[in-house]
Amino acid sequence: MSASMGLLKRTEYCGLLGPQHVGEPVVLMGWVHRRRDHGGLIFIDLRDREGVAQTVFNPEFHPEAHEVAHRMRAEFVVAIRGRVQARPPGTVNTALPSGAIEVVVEEAQILNEAKPPVFPIEEQTDVAEETRLTYRYLDLRRPSMLRNLRLRHKVSQAIRGYLDRHGFVEVETPMLTRSTPEGARDYLVPSRLNPGEFYALPQSPQLFKQLLMVAGMDRYYQIVRCFRDEDLRADRQPEFTQIDMELSFVDREDVLEVTEGLVAALFEAAGKPSLPRPFPRLTYAEAIDRFGLDAPDTRFGMELADLTEMLRGVEAKAFAEPIAQGGAVKGMNVKGCGSFSRTQIDGLVECAKGFGAKGLAWFKVSADGIQSPLAKFLGPTILKRLAERLNGEAGDLLLLIADQPMTAAGALGRLRVKLGRELKLIDESALAVTWVIDFPLLEYNPEQGRWQAMHHPFTSPLDEDLPLLGDDPGKVRAKAYDLVVNGQELGGGSIRIHRRDVQSQMFAALGIGEDEARAKFGFLLEALEYGAPPHGGIAFGLDRIIALLAGATSIRDVIAFPKTQKAQDLMTKAPSSVDSRQLRDLKIKLDLDVKGSP
Amino acid sequence: MSASMGLLKRTEYCGLLGPQHVGEPVVLMGWVHRRRDHGGLIFIDLRDREGVAQTVFNPEFHPEAHEVAHRMRAEFVVAIRGRVQARPPGTVNTALPSGAIEVVVEEAQILNEAKPPVFPIEEQTDVAEETRLTYRYLDLRRPSMLRNLRLRHKVSQAIRGYLDRHGFVEVETPMLTRSTPEGARDYLVPSRLNPGEFYALPQSPQLFKQLLMVAGMDRYYQIVRCFRDEDLRADRQPEFTQIDMELSFVDREDVLEVTEGLVAALFEAAGKPSLPRPFPRLTYAEAIDRFGLDAPDTRFGMELADLTEMLRGVEAKAFAEPIAQGGAVKGMNVKGCGSFSRTQIDGLVECAKGFGAKGLAWFKVSADGIQSPLAKFLGPTILKRLAERLNGEAGDLLLLIADQPMTAAGALGRLRVKLGRELKLIDESALAVTWVIDFPLLEYNPEQGRWQAMHHPFTSPLDEDLPLLGDDPGKVRAKAYDLVVNGQELGGGSIRIHRRDVQSQMFAALGIGEDEARAKFGFLLEALEYGAPPHGGIAFGLDRIIALLAGATSIRDVIAFPKTQKAQDLMTKAPSSVDSRQLRDLKIKLDLDVKGSP
Repeated sequence: MSASMGLLKRTEYCGLLGPQHVGEPVVLMGWVHRRRDHGGLIFIDLRDREGVAQTVFNPEFHPEAHEVAHRMRAEFVVAIRGRVQARPPGTVNTALPSGAIEVVVEEAQILNEAKPPVFPIEEQTDVAEETRLTYRYLDLRRPSMLRNLRLRHKVSQAIRGYLDRHGFVEVETPMLTRSTPEGARDYLVPSRLNPGEFYALPQSPQLFKQLLMVAGMDRYYQIVRCFRDEDLRADRQPEFTQIDMELSFVDREDVLEVTEGLVAALFEAAGKPSLPRPFPRLTYAEAIDRFGLDAPDTRFGMELADLTEMLRGVEAKAFAEPIAQGGAVKGMNVKGCGSFSRTQIDGLVECAKGFGAKGLAWFKVSADGIQSPLAKFLGPTILKRLAERLNGEAGDLLLLIADQPMTAAGALGRLRVKLGRELKLIDESALAVTWVIDFPLLEYNPEQGRWQAMHHPFTSPLDEDLPLLGDDPGKVRAKAYDLVVNGQELGGGSIRIHRRDVQSQMFAALGIGEDEARAKFGFLLEALEYGAPPHGGIAFGLDRIIALLAGATSIRDVIAFPKTQKAQDLMTKAPSSVDSRQLRDLKIKLDLDVKGSP
Repeated sequence: MSASMGLLKRTEYCGLLGPQHVGEPVVLMGWVHRRRDHGGLIFIDLRDREGVAQTVFNPEFHPEAHEVAHRMRAEFVVAIRGRVQARPPGTVNTALPSGAIEVVVEEAQILNEAKPPVFPIEEQTDVAEETRLTYRYLDLRRPSMLRNLRLRHKVSQAIRGYLDRHGFVEVETPMLTRSTPEGARDYLVPSRLNPGEFYALPQSPQLFKQLLMVAGMDRYYQIVRCFRDEDLRADRQPEFTQIDMELSFVDREDVLEVTEGLVAALFEAAGKPSLPRPFPRLTYAEAIDRFGLDAPDTRFGMELADLTEMLRGVEAKAFAEPIAQGGAVKGMNVKGCGSFSRTQIDGLVECAKGFGAKGLAWFKVSADGIQSPLAKFLGPTILKRLAERLNGEAGDLLLLIADQPMTAAGALGRLRVKLGRELKLIDESALAVTWVIDFPLLEYNPEQGRWQAMHHPFTSPLDEDLPLLGDDPGKVRAKAYDLVVNGQELGGGSIRIHRRDVQSQMFAALGIGEDEARAKFGFLLEALEYGAPPHGGIAFGLDRIIALLAGATSIRDVIAFPKTQKAQDLMTKAPSSVDSRQLRDLKIKLDLDVKGSP
């Protein structure tokens, strides 16, 4: 270990050095990225967050510095003082911004030693994610990870800049909030000062932002941490970050307009091509009809067709029976895949079943006619009309699913995305942005035998559908909207109910009595009685947006310290057991034998 | 209730209307602030977040709008369309930005009705804070509260802008972290997926920001929520917001310089006069010596003097005994207060006792000499030297405290602040900014019989004091610094230990063995072995800064939804009891009979 700090003062970042610095004295500090000993000289590639610079130690001119360099190993932290020179001809590295120069070192200090890193600090890595997360401080040294986090910073700044310019006020809402047992599971926090009582960490600041509108804040935003205690699927995190907005005195068009500007601004900040505006829109009904899903990937065609009427009453029971039971038949044409083997097709059938369908019917179109196990139950006329309807030409593969309408659409829609990916129909560089609007207000929960809010119970119905709320709630559309990019829902929102009487009607439709509503949401209901303006908003998942913009395959690659699927931080080993004194203070105890709900 | 939204589209904010709009058609939306009926006309003061505009309804020209206005009550939410005109001469209100104009209303809609507000929406209010917090959405309508929150927004933006320009990267650190049973009590969060284990909400992102430096992020910042489960004193909140920064390859001077720029930028954003730089500095020893406190209010004089040597061995036991036991005598001159009554002086004595001193000695200086119950035990020579030392002139009151050194200094220091306030020695408009540096690294905890870190165990000792760490730990000064404004600590930080061997020495001084250290902070210790750069940082309490800049008496007035001293949110009624199913899922149960630690 050499002299104390303060001797040298850094003048430049390694990665920002270039030909413009030739002849200048510089002081650099960073990590030993690579060391090569060559012809008596020592070459150290010195790395900082901006990149790498080559430094040269010559024992003839600066023997002391060379002696220090001799002790340097990978990932040692060092400071050097030297002079920038152009690299000798033939040794220029065009792959590096600093590749045309090198620094001749006159003085060197080792600021801190380092054990050999657990894995090499390289752009790409095939190290197990568990190891990367355990040594996250090493993983984050990799240029791609630093780049992701800096992109996140840049986009967050662009979001704030845009919203600031558009009159939005950033307001911080509480993290220790009240538990509302609707929606996903809350993370609970026992209150020591109020024994037996708990806070909940917010699943979103929904109610607080509505109250800010009642308070007259007019335009609110926040980039805010939210929490959901779910069984984690592949790309979910127990804590995630939301871009949260709310506006007063607006209708849907106002929200969509200001949001499109925001999305354009953040794509621009990430260096993406500018998005044509206004963004295309699909109604929920269209999205389901054409793509089978409410978050359609519109980067490619292969749209679904509805074949229900065509196949009503045919001999083939696989179609006729579901239709007779109120189901539907959806079909699509997988162009040029009529040559799929029986094994490939069996794979598709299994896939469709995995997506919830009871089966998958297939038809190969060839010059000789249409091949299918079901062909004989349909007859030539229907087969011809089927091929016509799906634009089936020789060499195509037609796939059909008959089931309950949403099941048929959903399963075939997911099969479409899977095939689109496998057949490379998707332009991976494209960004297909779409609004999906006019969502149903309610969806029926057959298990509980009641209607549920599709978004949340504060979503406003379309004015023209309000009269249906009492008698035909399934028909009521909501003033709700989702922003879908490349088949991913990046954000969603709605115009909220601002009238107390409409809110009561909504609760009635949900089978929630006034007493229950008051117990759960009393403060919001009361606020609606004290002068609530018309208002609405939207929220985006920041992690997902950054992953999309960074081209990352997982949101864990755009979060500094993410958790595993078991919701553990492998680096700090959280969660952990705690002192019994801590539990005593909170007046709780463990109850490990009890069975939780499934 | 009148027609649906969407009919009108707002064109201006009420509060931004002015003479430049005369003759223009406008659409305004907002709350009925005040209604006056006068000579057949109805005047409605319409309020939005920017302020108030006067609107006029004339039954002769626009009978329908007048009819709607007739139904308007305080805090109704309304939309109006009309034309701006100059107010008739003699009716101009110079107190309002829009006071020279009014809007003649041609069309009006009631967007939402409102019950009479629980308290009037006025600039000032004497409503009980409990009521204000219960109806926070009404309280926030008051212009002073909206102004505070918008100031907070503006200052937050200025902070981000400054740090962005200086190369800091905003990185979000986890909220679900590991409990470290040092410092204050953690808020715990039971983990459902890891039964029996708990997360802790962060008291600060200290360890994560240090790990980001090890990761090579170089400059980090975050405006971040932190949590402390303390028994709440007057102006504390269980969750509070911190401006958190960390820099690599820096020494103390670098941190202080970049921080001064930040503080200047945020004062400027709040419209305060620019601060002279560099900021004055006091060492901890000087601060205690001259002001008795480590967060001195330097807006006024009345500094303390050390009288220990002068009074060593005097006959007066009140002085001699504490000095003989290693104590000290501190004194100050309360100019011109020699006329204090016996009752007033008794009050000061009680006060000193409340501040932890055993007593308070007083001396009145007059033309005839010095009056004091202790005068006869000191004798004329000492009395004269005492008066000289404290610049005592006829009419002055001298106050002395003899006690253990820190107790004497602290009690007299607090008495100084109290008297400074009461005697109006403080220029309330002044902003006295001071660095306090060279804090002791350790402080002795007599109850536990061991040394404790004064800041935290990762604070670096001064290089020149490092050799003392083993033998004379109380003498070691830290590379720690606090920013004090008007006697309040607004922020503090330090250069951290980046060398594993120094960290081991520190733990040894704290009586923490390697095994214990590894169990508690293993990941940080390990990180120090893999190439940690020299680094340091600082953190500020945002709530307190905004309160200072807003001139608010409580941080609750600059937080949208604060909690009470019992850590309750009166509006949402958080915390609350939860479903037994939720507890079963978490495998915990209540244990209300157990006694927590005191």
